[in-house]
Amino acid sequence: MKLPKFEVEQWMTDYENDAVCNLTDTCIPALTVKELLAMDEAGDFQNVRLDYGAITGDLRVKEEILKLYQSGDSDSITTSQGCLQGNEMVMETLLEPGDHVITFKPGYQAFSDYPRALGGTVTELPLYEDDNWQPSVSDLEEAMKQKTKLIILNDPNNPTGIRFNDAFITRMIELAKEQGTWILSDEVYRDPACPSVSDLYDRGISTGSLSKMYSLAGLRFGWIKGPHDLIQKINERRDYSIISTGPLADTLAYIALKNKERLLERAENVIQANREIIQDWLKNEPACSVVLPEFCTVSFLKYEGDIPSKQLALDLLKKHGVFFVPGACFFHENHLRLSLTADPEVMKQGLSLLSSYLHQN
Amino acid sequence: MKLPKFEVEQWMTDYENDAVCNLTDTCIPALTVKELLAMDEAGDFQNVRLDYGAITGDLRVKEEILKLYQSGDSDSITTSQGCLQGNEMVMETLLEPGDHVITFKPGYQAFSDYPRALGGTVTELPLYEDDNWQPSVSDLEEAMKQKTKLIILNDPNNPTGIRFNDAFITRMIELAKEQGTWILSDEVYRDPACPSVSDLYDRGISTGSLSKMYSLAGLRFGWIKGPHDLIQKINERRDYSIISTGPLADTLAYIALKNKERLLERAENVIQANREIIQDWLKNEPACSVVLPEFCTVSFLKYEGDIPSKQLALDLLKKHGVFFVPGACFFHENHLRLSLTADPEVMKQGLSLLSSYLHQN
Repeated sequence: MKLPKFEVEQWMTDYENDAVCNLTDTCIPALTVKELLAMDEAGDFQNVRLDYGAITGDLRVKEEILKLYQSGDSDSITTSQGCLQGNEMVMETLLEPGDHVITFKPGYQAFSDYPRALGGTVTELPLYEDDNWQPSVSDLEEAMKQKTKLIILNDPNNPTGIRFNDAFITRMIELAKEQGTWILSDEVYRDPACPSVSDLYDRGISTGSLSKMYSLAGLRFGWIKGPHDLIQKINERRDYSIISTGPLADTLAYIALKNKERLLERAENVIQANREIIQDWLKNEPACSVVLPEFCTVSFLKYEGDIPSKQLALDLLKKHGVFFVPGACFFHENHLRLSLTADPEVMKQGLSLLSSYLHQN
Repeated sequence: MKLPKFEVEQWMTDYENDAVCNLTDTCIPALTVKELLAMDEAGDFQNVRLDYGAITGDLRVKEEILKLYQSGDSDSITTSQGCLQGNEMVMETLLEPGDHVITFKPGYQAFSDYPRALGGTVTELPLYEDDNWQPSVSDLEEAMKQKTKLIILNDPNNPTGIRFNDAFITRMIELAKEQGTWILSDEVYRDPACPSVSDLYDRGISTGSLSKMYSLAGLRFGWIKGPHDLIQKINERRDYSIISTGPLADTLAYIALKNKERLLERAENVIQANREIIQDWLKNEPACSVVLPEFCTVSFLKYEGDIPSKQLALDLLKKHGVFFVPGACFFHENHLRLSLTADPEVMKQGLSLLSSYLHQN
């Protein structure tokens, strides 16, 4: 099966270890095992037996996941090794060669290139920066003149961090209903107080994980929420790829989700501190602008000038240790993915070095 | 992508929880977290930070994996979430629609149905029970009259537990060299003292995991060993599915592999005790026979009579709580997968109940 390189992930793999000021990490700073286990009131982690565990996911963890949503039961949930794998399983289960898929750009490359690898045709609709990175209803209506099997969004979006507006979501669901189109929404950056497409539409599928907002990428734990028959089909496919997520990850995920308020509060503090630093910096930086999200770990910074984003990012890394993912990795020039997860001093220093660079070049 | 149900895995999922005497579990009894951590001499588990970790796998764990082989370096290894996922990644990376694949039956269903789902054509060569479940060189020569992209074996084989003989392996590699055919060998049941195809052939790929012989299915930790350029391609594809196996599993896998002699000795004791019980039982059970493996957790028991294997397995489970995977799940009637992992008293009781059943029906 042919797949091109995943630009943003390869960039991270190739360069992230050289970062001194990492201004592009999508995750709230990770907990240690000790910090996570300090939340384990039941204290049963040491007694977990490391067999395959519950094949379709520990019931306790499914029940905690359900609390992030307004609808569904334990048969509406299956577990995956990260949100990415959840997305992969959904796409593999739903798509056949020739199927039409709609997704959005700038966006996460897997949502265009993986459907193509499965033999689908993909329409990528623009998100308009001038309209706060919103899509256009008329673009969607035009694209859906052909029969569409699946719409894939990332809500909030990576790299912009911006949520799709409610009017668009409502109209998208209306159009999807007419055709029986599925909607997969990667909600890995979602604030559980915000709507999920899986609660709004009977062919809506939500994926999520503990990696970004819950500071626990190292658990490699994610999930899929969707209608029973789809979840059943995915559970059957899981036999070919993972069998189970296993009792180690399931148990630690359960502990984390039992304590989600603490983890989300921690995330909010980190994001808010970064927001303020970025806003202050922008007041004196006319060469840059950004649509700042309310509650997300990523944003997509625009800069003025002719320097290609990869060159800018590499220069900054090599000269100053400041690390960004360039817009080119999202096929969108003159932008850098700017995260809201850094230590405040690191963020201030990194932005200051970015300013110096932009004004020297 | 269309995939049929995975018969053996679905059977396990549907019925394993009802087992009182489980005589078909492929894993040496699992360790608890506490038992595993008791081997952690460095004691650094609590300090592991739960970020994505080393994207292509922790170097320390790769170096421990290499000790299971005769050749290769850290670039010859990548990590996966179980052996199954390693196999999936290899098949997805190598196969294109129209490619010819050879595998063996009875065998693991993924090795015929997953290549078919990827658009390949598959020839399944028989393993001959009368010849101790060995394949035939002439069958292979005949099948390779067409150009073959990939040969997939499971060595030792699931469900028979038997290794492919050295003469066959040697001839298979000769034939593969002539055509540039890749050989994927799922060696999840391998004794590291035995040869690995990845040490014998430059297009040989070995997959393995800690699930079966190392008692740690709950870590969901496996690996792929192969030539550098293939491992590099797989690492690029991993960005679409898992990103990393994560520092939690990597660290615990490192602890396990540092202590592999203890774990393998434990496995040997369990298997040897089960072998002796089975051999004693067979002396007085003319209705059954089995080719017992030297060192593997599974075998494929033959029984006389007309009862379909699914009916037999369901009857035994419902009436007596004795659990087998029926041969029908491997598309091979009059057989049951009999594991060598049970508690001795459970094994004795289960076999006795099987005898009673066979003589009453």
